[in-house]
Amino acid sequence: MSTASATQTEHLHELSRQIRRWIIRCTSQADSGHPTSSLSSVELMVGLLFGDCFRFNLQQPDHPANDRLIFSKGHASPLFYSLWAAAGEIEPEDLMGYRTFGSRLEGHPTSRFRLTEAATGSLGQGLSIGVGMALTAKSLDRSPSRTFVLLGDSEMAEGSQWEAIQLAAHYQLDNLIGILDVNRLGQRGETMYGHDLTAYRDRIESFGWRCVLIEDGHDYDQVRRAYAALGEAGERSGKPTMLIARTIKGKGIPSLEDENGHHGKPVDQESLDQVLSQLGDPNRSIRGEIAPPVVYQPDPAASREVASVDYSLGDQVATRDAFGNALVRLADKYPRLVSLDGEVCNSTRSKRFRDQYPDRFFEMFVAEQNMVGAATGMALRGKTPFVSTFAAFLTRAFDQIRMAPYSDASIKFVGSHCGVSIGQDGPSQMGLEDIAMFRTIQNGLVLYPSDATSTEALVDLMADYDGIAYLRTTRGKLPVIYDAEETFQIGGSKVLRTSDADQVTLIAAGITLHECLSAQAMLQDRGIVARVIDLYSIKPLDHATVRQAADQSEVVFTVEDHFPEGGLGEAVLTSLSDHSTPVNCIAVRKRPLSGSPDELLDAEGISAAMIADAVTRWLIR
Amino acid sequence: MSTASATQTEHLHELSRQIRRWIIRCTSQADSGHPTSSLSSVELMVGLLFGDCFRFNLQQPDHPANDRLIFSKGHASPLFYSLWAAAGEIEPEDLMGYRTFGSRLEGHPTSRFRLTEAATGSLGQGLSIGVGMALTAKSLDRSPSRTFVLLGDSEMAEGSQWEAIQLAAHYQLDNLIGILDVNRLGQRGETMYGHDLTAYRDRIESFGWRCVLIEDGHDYDQVRRAYAALGEAGERSGKPTMLIARTIKGKGIPSLEDENGHHGKPVDQESLDQVLSQLGDPNRSIRGEIAPPVVYQPDPAASREVASVDYSLGDQVATRDAFGNALVRLADKYPRLVSLDGEVCNSTRSKRFRDQYPDRFFEMFVAEQNMVGAATGMALRGKTPFVSTFAAFLTRAFDQIRMAPYSDASIKFVGSHCGVSIGQDGPSQMGLEDIAMFRTIQNGLVLYPSDATSTEALVDLMADYDGIAYLRTTRGKLPVIYDAEETFQIGGSKVLRTSDADQVTLIAAGITLHECLSAQAMLQDRGIVARVIDLYSIKPLDHATVRQAADQSEVVFTVEDHFPEGGLGEAVLTSLSDHSTPVNCIAVRKRPLSGSPDELLDAEGISAAMIADAVTRWLIR
Repeated sequence: MSTASATQTEHLHELSRQIRRWIIRCTSQADSGHPTSSLSSVELMVGLLFGDCFRFNLQQPDHPANDRLIFSKGHASPLFYSLWAAAGEIEPEDLMGYRTFGSRLEGHPTSRFRLTEAATGSLGQGLSIGVGMALTAKSLDRSPSRTFVLLGDSEMAEGSQWEAIQLAAHYQLDNLIGILDVNRLGQRGETMYGHDLTAYRDRIESFGWRCVLIEDGHDYDQVRRAYAALGEAGERSGKPTMLIARTIKGKGIPSLEDENGHHGKPVDQESLDQVLSQLGDPNRSIRGEIAPPVVYQPDPAASREVASVDYSLGDQVATRDAFGNALVRLADKYPRLVSLDGEVCNSTRSKRFRDQYPDRFFEMFVAEQNMVGAATGMALRGKTPFVSTFAAFLTRAFDQIRMAPYSDASIKFVGSHCGVSIGQDGPSQMGLEDIAMFRTIQNGLVLYPSDATSTEALVDLMADYDGIAYLRTTRGKLPVIYDAEETFQIGGSKVLRTSDADQVTLIAAGITLHECLSAQAMLQDRGIVARVIDLYSIKPLDHATVRQAADQSEVVFTVEDHFPEGGLGEAVLTSLSDHSTPVNCIAVRKRPLSGSPDELLDAEGISAAMIADAVTRWLIR
Repeated sequence: MSTASATQTEHLHELSRQIRRWIIRCTSQADSGHPTSSLSSVELMVGLLFGDCFRFNLQQPDHPANDRLIFSKGHASPLFYSLWAAAGEIEPEDLMGYRTFGSRLEGHPTSRFRLTEAATGSLGQGLSIGVGMALTAKSLDRSPSRTFVLLGDSEMAEGSQWEAIQLAAHYQLDNLIGILDVNRLGQRGETMYGHDLTAYRDRIESFGWRCVLIEDGHDYDQVRRAYAALGEAGERSGKPTMLIARTIKGKGIPSLEDENGHHGKPVDQESLDQVLSQLGDPNRSIRGEIAPPVVYQPDPAASREVASVDYSLGDQVATRDAFGNALVRLADKYPRLVSLDGEVCNSTRSKRFRDQYPDRFFEMFVAEQNMVGAATGMALRGKTPFVSTFAAFLTRAFDQIRMAPYSDASIKFVGSHCGVSIGQDGPSQMGLEDIAMFRTIQNGLVLYPSDATSTEALVDLMADYDGIAYLRTTRGKLPVIYDAEETFQIGGSKVLRTSDADQVTLIAAGITLHECLSAQAMLQDRGIVARVIDLYSIKPLDHATVRQAADQSEVVFTVEDHFPEGGLGEAVLTSLSDHSTPVNCIAVRKRPLSGSPDELLDAEGISAAMIADAVTRWLIR
């Protein structure tokens, strides 16, 4: 090895000593955190960031030419923050505020620290996010940026990892590099494969990846050779790469090395000095340099005027069709809009976008967890991903969905085939929990259109929304009830039937709104006057209109093709929690079956006739 | 080939012709369903059931010696039902009621048909369920039963499949046989690997399975040779087996064979006769014989008396610890109780059960989807599985959880580390959506204990409950507030503070119940009288006690360490939907952060002081 690089290796060793000090001290100070899991990755990460491999401009962290680093093993955050301290981004004294209330240095990395690429901490999510970032660089931005993902060995048991490995190979993401820290020990003991690097290599290679083994993940010669073997940014081998390194959990502190029972356990204050002394004398002033990104000019994507909608009142159009039409119509208005679908684009209707904008459509196959993880990565790289599949199957990715807000990722979800109204396919295909699931997302939108015109308007609004948004679409055709001039807004609603003498208010969205409109006519024939509200925005909800309706009627009925828990009805109950007008929530309460849509709406009591009867019974009770 | 087996092969061909007729006719009659996906698997399934491989006693479907057959590709239900028609279990005229309202023959198999092993239809779940059944036969019942799972090629993209493949190899489930129907075409087009059998073999073998390729999945010689190669039941190679067969989607109907665009499309009535004529003349009276199971006597597991709990009032015990203690204490009372954990048993405390009953504990590693699928399989084979991990990570398996009721599977879930009160680890580890998720499960229980005594009682109740039950446990220590004699029930609650002059009612569970008890004392000092209710059963909920409290106080406050949507507060709002007393729901509304538990309870307004102030502000407003 040349003296130059020998000097550099000594520099990396000094950096490592200082970083190990910081890892031990900040976790000991916090009296919580994962020092041993951090110590095993030190050389892998110091070698990457400060060994001339990783390219990043600290002054322009969002620049598309920057390489990306995701800590999928988010519990190694003490190392993550220490690396940025070594790069001069974090002051050592700030490190000592790790995990304290208000610190940007949270227990697991979140967007509160500006250089966190993606929030992690729920294992098995980082590689999918990396797939989304690598796909963005390769297929959309055509930038030289490479994405590096630090993986733990325990988390390789998560199926989402294999979804990501499979898709990365399919899309030939040779700009994606996984760094697998095989430290042998999980939280409660040894992993499935212990220190057997070949077990990981055989499995990952079988999916079409290039694998490089690092027999000693603490030897800088081996680590730097592995990174050098990656070649220059922009190299195109057609294969993603996995570096698989044997490491020692707790490395650097003999008393903790490779021992079970130290996971997530900081060094106590009493033994701190004794433990630190095992690290040898640090050079406290030492810092590291990160190489600058290669020059690259992104081409600015300009928004262009698009046509307005023109459905005619009464046209029979499924809202899922209107969604497909909207993606195509809005493509030029939102040049960063991309579509991801879980092998059902002919059902969700994202196929229409795929056929016209193949370069902006990504087939994600039947692997919803990775689809959502990749969408998170694309969103964090500035795209506007629309993720579509059956509403029922979005439950598959609830963990990825709940994590997205901690990355400030702005993702648009579209769930088709909601409710029992899909009919013969039966309960496995029916989205009956999706409103409840998406309502739990902080600052998330839950939109549920009842016709084609409002669907197109809501797709436009959600594309423009900064945050998580969910659109619930319906399988069957529904009549268009709004003309093209009608305006809609987030948190809005429409009062479709009203008078000065309303006795009852019916609140619904989607297919049950149409059942309520028919019920209103039936009730009129019985001399009962009902107001009907289209609650197309379930979250946020039009508080003023709902309260006014409660003020002006004897009773409120909500009707939804969804289970009662967490649905539209409970959203209305929350809005009226301090209001005395009684509310009746009609929802899917019997076990859903196969049958015709009409039979099922009747069986669940959410058809026009059943709604009208329920209202009548209540008034004459 | 011997003439005997030549005759048998001809018999299988005749059966196949008749089964293909039934597949085409019942889907055409229903005008929905998936005939082409069914046709590709005909020889694989007829060869299994009627070729002397599969062993099953139709008179005793629950007998533990029976082999098991799971259709993971549940959309092939026309084939599934036709097989049982050929076995004499279903009358041909009943087949023609396929997918009609009220028929036990639903669009995708559910427990409404008595020979459905497990409800499927959401892809990528059957193999995990098979893992649970094979694990039950091998490790618990020690029965010769083998489990066969029919898999589609599209669904191999699901990560859950690789979780199952990985765990089956780890537990050496040589009584598990996957049958992979590689018909090349998914719903919207070609799969990732098309007809490349070796792509599947290489990947599956790398995980330690034995793979057998069937170059022509419609050739009975090849199919029967593959089944014969499995060896006799009870053979112990130590490896699970995957049969990988090249098949033709739509096989048997030349106009549909291997053509895209026919997925989920039945033959229309007009062309029905023409299409059926392509099948040749059937022998309508032909039926098949299934071989009987080998003789095996299960040893009856007897329930035994167990000690009662004895915590002392005021003891500081985390409810997660009480859960661990309860599993151990109740082991003899529930001999069928087993524990599954996602590599965090030292945190959930199921470790205590593992250490004392290692044969009844299953380490499922960090793979929650497969853990829940396997628990479904164990439950369907008569065990009482307790599935434990962090509450946050149960969201990973929402799709498997929502499907379990359609199998009538009785599974017990335990989620630890709920809410912001876990502190420093931050939002990724906090269960803040779990109550909302489990409340959506029909007939499911949501239990949330506040002390050790009630935790033990609730674990006992849920072990005995026939259905899905969820227990929410807390990380930190809490004082014991109930003595050992106290009784609890599903749908019950406890009024802990009350008087004739209650102005306010505070309803909570878990850690916030203790905050409410402190708040009640603070309010008393301010001259405000409050009732406090422990709502340990959130679903079902103690309607009478909640309504009485609303009748007897000016205002109701709910307090929970959970997001407001779908939580305890909305459950109470639903109970009081026709009641005029105002309800205020205090919950986690700000972005959760890292910090100390007390700081976070304060920041979210769910600490005693913040509760007392909110009540005071409301009363003097």
